[in-house]
Amino acid sequence: MLLFCLFTMAPISYLLGQQIGNVVYVDAKELTLIGKANPTPHHYHRIDTLQYQTMPAAVKKLFTNSAGLAIVFKTNSNTISARWTTANPKTSSNMTAIAHKGLDLYIKRDGEWIFAGVGRPTVNSTTAQVVQNMEDGEKECLLYLPLYDEIKSLEIGVAEDSFIEPSVNPFRKKVLIYGSSITQGASASRPGMAYPARLSRKSGINFINLGLSGNGKMHQPVADMLADIEADAYILDCAANPSPDEISQRTGYLVKTIRNRYPGAPIIMIQSVVREGGNFDVKVKERVTGQNKNFKHEFEKLKSAGIKDLYFIEGELLGTDHEGTTDGVHPNDLGFDRILDVIENPILEILRQYGV
Amino acid sequence: MLLFCLFTMAPISYLLGQQIGNVVYVDAKELTLIGKANPTPHHYHRIDTLQYQTMPAAVKKLFTNSAGLAIVFKTNSNTISARWTTANPKTSSNMTAIAHKGLDLYIKRDGEWIFAGVGRPTVNSTTAQVVQNMEDGEKECLLYLPLYDEIKSLEIGVAEDSFIEPSVNPFRKKVLIYGSSITQGASASRPGMAYPARLSRKSGINFINLGLSGNGKMHQPVADMLADIEADAYILDCAANPSPDEISQRTGYLVKTIRNRYPGAPIIMIQSVVREGGNFDVKVKERVTGQNKNFKHEFEKLKSAGIKDLYFIEGELLGTDHEGTTDGVHPNDLGFDRILDVIENPILEILRQYGV
Repeated sequence: MLLFCLFTMAPISYLLGQQIGNVVYVDAKELTLIGKANPTPHHYHRIDTLQYQTMPAAVKKLFTNSAGLAIVFKTNSNTISARWTTANPKTSSNMTAIAHKGLDLYIKRDGEWIFAGVGRPTVNSTTAQVVQNMEDGEKECLLYLPLYDEIKSLEIGVAEDSFIEPSVNPFRKKVLIYGSSITQGASASRPGMAYPARLSRKSGINFINLGLSGNGKMHQPVADMLADIEADAYILDCAANPSPDEISQRTGYLVKTIRNRYPGAPIIMIQSVVREGGNFDVKVKERVTGQNKNFKHEFEKLKSAGIKDLYFIEGELLGTDHEGTTDGVHPNDLGFDRILDVIENPILEILRQYGV
Repeated sequence: MLLFCLFTMAPISYLLGQQIGNVVYVDAKELTLIGKANPTPHHYHRIDTLQYQTMPAAVKKLFTNSAGLAIVFKTNSNTISARWTTANPKTSSNMTAIAHKGLDLYIKRDGEWIFAGVGRPTVNSTTAQVVQNMEDGEKECLLYLPLYDEIKSLEIGVAEDSFIEPSVNPFRKKVLIYGSSITQGASASRPGMAYPARLSRKSGINFINLGLSGNGKMHQPVADMLADIEADAYILDCAANPSPDEISQRTGYLVKTIRNRYPGAPIIMIQSVVREGGNFDVKVKERVTGQNKNFKHEFEKLKSAGIKDLYFIEGELLGTDHEGTTDGVHPNDLGFDRILDVIENPILEILRQYGV
């Protein structure tokens, strides 16, 4: 039916959707989902958690969150709405509900992705207009899904006399980012401000968000799962969650497991942010100092042991004024901007060397 | 009792507070409250809403929000906790609960205010540790109150063997900022990231937050109330809420009313942010263009009419990449940082000319 619509140029929304007022809703499963590591039976899960039974329960639950996933489509509608349902009633005090369980729309203009509007969640079931009063003409759209919740259903609404159709993934190649809550997106103000998403829009490269809030601890079953994902590069931003000792015990296995499966693919390790909660809390400061020291030490050991195509990025990730977090741990959008100031060019430079 | 404690150097917490575990709580009313325009009968209201009965109901309600208020105190405790109650059950989808109804602590180090920790709200009644494991010694503390809620009660907790005492307002002079939700602090990630608070910490000047979410519309009774507040300067960041027509009708009255009461005090008008919601929504774009055009036009009329000591600040308030908002309207911390890049130096330069 979908192909038929594309060929006949008939308004696909008539055929797929359900009309409400003068807005017609299309199931987002009929459009293009991007940001996935591999296909999964559950459309909006990041990883097939049934396939990897031995991963910790908390990790499996977090992989049901739609961080980094987005829907891409084209429409000539003057308005775009959404109806969506998420699984969990709660939000966190350090995130906006928009980031946690809302939607975030970008539209391409002159080759760049420009912010267009958000879907503000109410409780767990929301119908909301994302943008309205747009000029006529075709729009290429990129709609980010919630960072910290599981999508149970999602429909996109367009004006009844317009078309909506899947478009191709605008991002090339595939670069995994495995990490903590900071990778997952806490505390970006909206889904599109998570740093992997920003990196994709800025570079055109398909960065895959495998951030695991509080649980990016390099568990062995997770390392084994990561090695099942074939990618052009692997970024390990996972020094924030494991203890300093766990970093010493687990980093070698993670790096070698990926290296053995994908000889020649660059592996990029990133130091953890210096936690602003440690400005006065000496225990927090000690812990993050230990994490970064041990992560760097493991990097050096692996390099000495002959592991090639391995890189380490470090710097003043949050700047120097201590204003870059929401809660002492998680970057706000200012902190994320400063992280990109430090990591973006080195990452892209390394990727260029490998033709990514 | 308070003075007695200060003179005898006895741990004031024993005398004022209620011990819970090994934390002793002191009513914040015994400490120093800063950020007020004038004293009010209700300790944590920004304005005495009973005195100004003719202000719109929404304005009166918003002046019960504690945006810009902070408690300053000294303690030698190694931990700081808080117990507080706020009035309203809801938060907004475009703000964190920490910003909305939480607390935000800074401690002075080497003459600078450094972020120390947040009080994460649960529902409307919270007990939370804000910072722990601090080194010994006296700390000068600045604790920001919720941006978008009314404080019903607030107690500060310190270790039972430590002292806590009021300290003097660390900020000099008094500069009012009257404005919209953006002035009030939406969508800063925490209370101390609202731009008037950031300006105070950076400059040492006492900026007073009179932001009124959605209601900074230059109503005549509000203009009259503002003129009752004697200050060293008046910043009008209020082009975001009134319609373009209301701006034309009301700006003259507001500026002249302040000017007549305080000849010689600088009045600084700031253009509204260009709403990112207007990137594709042509009606939003039209409205903000009209607001800024009319606000500038009123400025020029007032200058031509001989009003002196009147200034206008404009620029690329949110930068050029369209990433500086949480929801298309309200700046995220990145957007606020860019606003400061534009307005901070011009404001401070003007204030310097007037000895502020």
